[in-house]
Amino acid sequence: MDIPLPLDAPMSDADADALIGTMGRSARVAAATLALAPTAQKAGALVHAAALLRQRAEAILAANADDMARAAESGMADAMRDRLRLDPARLEGIARALEAVAALDDPVGRTIDASERPNGLRLSRVRVPLGVIGIIYESRPNVTADAGALALMAGNAAILRGGSEARASNAAIHAALADGIAAAGLPRDAVQMIPTSDRAAVGALLRAQGLVDIIVPRGGKGLVARVQAEARVPVLAHLDGINHSFVHASADPAMAEALVVNAKLRRTGVCGATETVLVDRGYRHAEVLVAALLEAGCAVRGDADAMALDPRITAAEVADWDTEYLDAICSVAVVDGLDGALAHIARHASHHTDAIIAGDADVAERFLREVDSAIVMWNASTQFADGGEFGLGAEIGISTGRLHARGPVALEGLTTYKWVVRGSGQARP
Amino acid sequence: MDIPLPLDAPMSDADADALIGTMGRSARVAAATLALAPTAQKAGALVHAAALLRQRAEAILAANADDMARAAESGMADAMRDRLRLDPARLEGIARALEAVAALDDPVGRTIDASERPNGLRLSRVRVPLGVIGIIYESRPNVTADAGALALMAGNAAILRGGSEARASNAAIHAALADGIAAAGLPRDAVQMIPTSDRAAVGALLRAQGLVDIIVPRGGKGLVARVQAEARVPVLAHLDGINHSFVHASADPAMAEALVVNAKLRRTGVCGATETVLVDRGYRHAEVLVAALLEAGCAVRGDADAMALDPRITAAEVADWDTEYLDAICSVAVVDGLDGALAHIARHASHHTDAIIAGDADVAERFLREVDSAIVMWNASTQFADGGEFGLGAEIGISTGRLHARGPVALEGLTTYKWVVRGSGQARP
Repeated sequence: MDIPLPLDAPMSDADADALIGTMGRSARVAAATLALAPTAQKAGALVHAAALLRQRAEAILAANADDMARAAESGMADAMRDRLRLDPARLEGIARALEAVAALDDPVGRTIDASERPNGLRLSRVRVPLGVIGIIYESRPNVTADAGALALMAGNAAILRGGSEARASNAAIHAALADGIAAAGLPRDAVQMIPTSDRAAVGALLRAQGLVDIIVPRGGKGLVARVQAEARVPVLAHLDGINHSFVHASADPAMAEALVVNAKLRRTGVCGATETVLVDRGYRHAEVLVAALLEAGCAVRGDADAMALDPRITAAEVADWDTEYLDAICSVAVVDGLDGALAHIARHASHHTDAIIAGDADVAERFLREVDSAIVMWNASTQFADGGEFGLGAEIGISTGRLHARGPVALEGLTTYKWVVRGSGQARP
Repeated sequence: MDIPLPLDAPMSDADADALIGTMGRSARVAAATLALAPTAQKAGALVHAAALLRQRAEAILAANADDMARAAESGMADAMRDRLRLDPARLEGIARALEAVAALDDPVGRTIDASERPNGLRLSRVRVPLGVIGIIYESRPNVTADAGALALMAGNAAILRGGSEARASNAAIHAALADGIAAAGLPRDAVQMIPTSDRAAVGALLRAQGLVDIIVPRGGKGLVARVQAEARVPVLAHLDGINHSFVHASADPAMAEALVVNAKLRRTGVCGATETVLVDRGYRHAEVLVAALLEAGCAVRGDADAMALDPRITAAEVADWDTEYLDAICSVAVVDGLDGALAHIARHASHHTDAIIAGDADVAERFLREVDSAIVMWNASTQFADGGEFGLGAEIGISTGRLHARGPVALEGLTTYKWVVRGSGQARP
């Protein structure tokens, strides 16, 4: 295998800053070209890269086998090994994802709004790329292709930093992406990968103000928390998805049962999963609702009122209301109507996704208006919190921050805008 | 005078953190109410505050006289004392500015876009307030009213930190604003003023992640640079306005002369002033252009080619191309066509405002597309870079950052959005 493996040599902070400085300046140069690249050229790069992934499938799977062998030696947990593993079907999925991103509408050049001033100046706001995106991720090698492709399609340069456990897989996938980019006549440095496993390079990336415009961490809470704590560059991320489904007294019982079970259990490990179910004291089918959760295999932890609904419910501790289980565990609280639900959510939500199940439209609209989360839902499963489900075609992540972009972020969130003013000789009086 | 003056006692970082923590939590509580306040209530608060400013004019001017007396004792420079000074006309201007903000369109609740998914989910993005805005400013007491009013009208709570030199004026203006807010039935803590002159409180505000959503510095470069260097909270600001006016060979000479003189000299101290004039080597009226600048009282520093245009031009040093003079001084470089101008701007611009003066529309459109600045202009004076001139009704500042908001920022830039999803019982397959 001739894919160059990342360096394992320890690195000083100064060396890491120098490395990131060099990469950042190359990225900035590439970004200037990408900002002006036609849609077809960017899309062509991704389609070409997808073809290269298929052509090189054998080598890429061999690289992945090396990573898997090291993972086995190091005693990596099964769940993490599953995330690391590639097979022909998964590799085909990565190639198709590149093609899907290539088919998305290009936000660059789109006019946001326009006006004409009384003095005849014509103003418009036009979308332009953000610039240089830093992406820090773990285990899943598909992020190399996905995130690099989204950054590129929105006209940005990207600096990728994958987990050391996936270094051979990432290098092989990155090479296909870079070759596709070069074949389309775009600068190879449009998507660069940090060539070292030393964590000093991550620190350097996080403090690369002026070189990197935004950092997107993709991974577990430990990674996201470290990035948010250390970064001097703006971060687009969510740390927790402590999501609520509130069942109002006016909810249809069959709908409530179906939505709560889906919101909690369809996939327990996703950030859109419901972690706490709030049951209105006036809802008359609460026993059936919690029984459905229990019978679907979910452990239920409740407050005193919830515990009275079913003997299988165990006592919730204080920390439960602020816990993202990411597992078949659910906390249940009985609340006094909409106001009780709003108070609980205001106190415990991570401002990711919160839902109400209700027949009463006035109550539901008040919930949608008053809950301050990136996504608020009425009569839908919180598991829909996803860029693909929202019609964005893909997502680079879900933001629980309030600035720039909120909720699922895809191409538009990787752009900014500029003001374009066209005059006919106006001087300011 | 019964206006309480700020404390001058030195403060430890821990005490400053405690103070800002208390203020930030009160602001967060107030913000939750403000986020749901009707437009008329917010506008009513500002109109009431304007009336109170007029009612209390005598006391406010007396407070300002105290500040002016201290300024005189401390030997404050004339320009700064002029910024500090209030008189009946300036106070009336502050009251009218509050009424103007009250009349602006409320962005909160506005739908950005909406769609329906194939599964029947109805999605929309709706504008909501950012939350808590920290505003740090110097000298001009009108910022107390202006910035507080903009934050409030966009549904946010604000924490203000004015300069110690204006503390009595700021306290009097703030009291009118807070009383107007309370009279409208909104929480008085919606706009708070930090009650100490100790700089430790600024440090605490800058690191108040989670309590403050964005910091807006309003003042000189020293202030903005310190805020940008220290802040752990996102900052909306520009440090420099190193703006260019490029005169292309195809420019109309009369228009070029009028625009360049206006862009440089209308007001030399504003951030939208042109600092460097780039003259196309093919432009045949360059001598007349620089003579117009010189005769209007502008010192001109040029490169070797520019110096050949007029003996009064002195030699520019390397630093001149990166200098924001904010004075009647201009640097002039002769460049080779559009490409030469683009290269100079890419290297030296602060990405604030850059203009081309040209008759050739293809050249101008390429300039508008390729220059990566917050504002790009064709055949207009860079001095139009201003929220009021752009029809925003006001501005809290001009952002040269790339995230969230770029260029002039008014109410919309002080909001974010949430995703609202309305379903009819959809569970995710």
